[in-house]
Amino acid sequence: MQENKKFTAAVVQMGMSKNTDENLKKAKSFIEEAAKKGAKVICLPELFRSPYFCQAEDITNFDLAESIPGKSTGEIGEVAKRHRVSVIVPLFEKKAPGLYFNSIVLIDNNGEIKGKYRKMHIPDDPGFYEKFYFTPGDLGYKSIPVESGNIGTLICWDQWYPEAARLTALAGAEIIFYPTAIGWHPAEKSKHGKKQYESWITVQRGHAIANGVYIAAANRIGTEKVSKDSAGIEFWGQSFICDPQGVIIAQASSDKEEIIMAEIDLDRIEYIRRNWPFLRDRRIDSYGNIVQRYGDE
Amino acid sequence: MQENKKFTAAVVQMGMSKNTDENLKKAKSFIEEAAKKGAKVICLPELFRSPYFCQAEDITNFDLAESIPGKSTGEIGEVAKRHRVSVIVPLFEKKAPGLYFNSIVLIDNNGEIKGKYRKMHIPDDPGFYEKFYFTPGDLGYKSIPVESGNIGTLICWDQWYPEAARLTALAGAEIIFYPTAIGWHPAEKSKHGKKQYESWITVQRGHAIANGVYIAAANRIGTEKVSKDSAGIEFWGQSFICDPQGVIIAQASSDKEEIIMAEIDLDRIEYIRRNWPFLRDRRIDSYGNIVQRYGDE
Repeated sequence: MQENKKFTAAVVQMGMSKNTDENLKKAKSFIEEAAKKGAKVICLPELFRSPYFCQAEDITNFDLAESIPGKSTGEIGEVAKRHRVSVIVPLFEKKAPGLYFNSIVLIDNNGEIKGKYRKMHIPDDPGFYEKFYFTPGDLGYKSIPVESGNIGTLICWDQWYPEAARLTALAGAEIIFYPTAIGWHPAEKSKHGKKQYESWITVQRGHAIANGVYIAAANRIGTEKVSKDSAGIEFWGQSFICDPQGVIIAQASSDKEEIIMAEIDLDRIEYIRRNWPFLRDRRIDSYGNIVQRYGDE
Repeated sequence: MQENKKFTAAVVQMGMSKNTDENLKKAKSFIEEAAKKGAKVICLPELFRSPYFCQAEDITNFDLAESIPGKSTGEIGEVAKRHRVSVIVPLFEKKAPGLYFNSIVLIDNNGEIKGKYRKMHIPDDPGFYEKFYFTPGDLGYKSIPVESGNIGTLICWDQWYPEAARLTALAGAEIIFYPTAIGWHPAEKSKHGKKQYESWITVQRGHAIANGVYIAAANRIGTEKVSKDSAGIEFWGQSFICDPQGVIIAQASSDKEEIIMAEIDLDRIEYIRRNWPFLRDRRIDSYGNIVQRYGDE
């Protein structure tokens, strides 16, 4: 028997300033706006409280980390409760002195913390020195039930790992949210920019198709520089939501702050999975080597 | 240190008649043509010796199965040796009375059998009654070294499984070939056809990106019916080759027999994986649950 279960998901695409209180205020304002438009589950971009500080390795940036619960979860919790919405809140988490994570807190529509995820796959590339800041996640892959549905939570670099999407879907997630901070090195944009962006969106659409789940990615916009001399990163925006067949159903611009919204129809997951029953035929007897690094030694 | 290692891969897209000898003759002719154009590794479509008989469950169709080695491997082996090419030969394999597989034989450029793969994921949908005919593969995921490079072999329904692509890449494959027989139910084509095709190509491009490998899919063309009354399947052609960033570098029509070819540059795999080092950051400590069916029980 089918229940007709639908809700509206929203993704907030925004730019961040150095004023962390201003970023929080802006995020709360976007949450309110999305709620008023009918959204029930709302996702903010990765590390939305600050510029993308991982462009440089600077220990003073650990001052940006906050405890959970803390100021962000408290203030967003109030907004979430007032508007009866669930919010995916990505935070630079301070667990203890010298121990920090790139995390998500899922705040439920009663304002309380419903679940937490810590980014499992940590990148380290020029301009994305995340291994300096974040301990790899220790909580595994999450499906967190809220009133609207089962929410999967992954973060940015996790996007490139089919294992992460699969394990999140197998945990029960019906939609996977990916708060993100991805952009172009300005020197690479003209030559490689289009391919890089297309790879990013394609691999995620692939996860949606392979797992029969909705996927929503929330990116930031704007060019951020750590110094006047640095080339910086041009965050490419283009946040999107796709359906369980990989069809894009909402997509943002590359350079504007905006909210994108889409109807999430949980019956469509059932429909798609009945027609292409991939989960039925997984060869779980044959996947054991996936926990190996490469080859057989 | 880099070696500049390149070769040309070819995918044969063809239609099949009820005359199995004619299909073999046509395939050999395409192999010769591809070889003369410079191809070194050539892939035929799934079950190329016959129409796609799995549209109906009919025990007389087991007569189409052949032993390995057998007529197909013998005749194609001669062509492969004469032209110094490696060929991915998809066959309906008879292992023993009552035991049949949907297989690939990789024939090397000396005409000998270099390796074998048996389709791991077996579909069963209206018009695609493969579970009636094929025992699920028992040889695991393969990377088979030939002079040109390391060849990964998967078949059709395997396309939808990220685990299959990942394990094939981790075994060392630099290019994964997917012989295929996929098409539209004529009644669904106008409403769902475009989405179905786009899902198919997107999930495979996603595998290329996530694993940093080339991917080549060889489909058949034409509408095949099991009886005058049956709607049949319209095989959608559109065989393609994409690079390790998911960029399509060769693509066939939806309705013509043709050979598509592309240069496979093994240095490009190194280049792409250096720039997006996904393999470096796999969380192999966290993937254990991938051998579970769903959830935790």
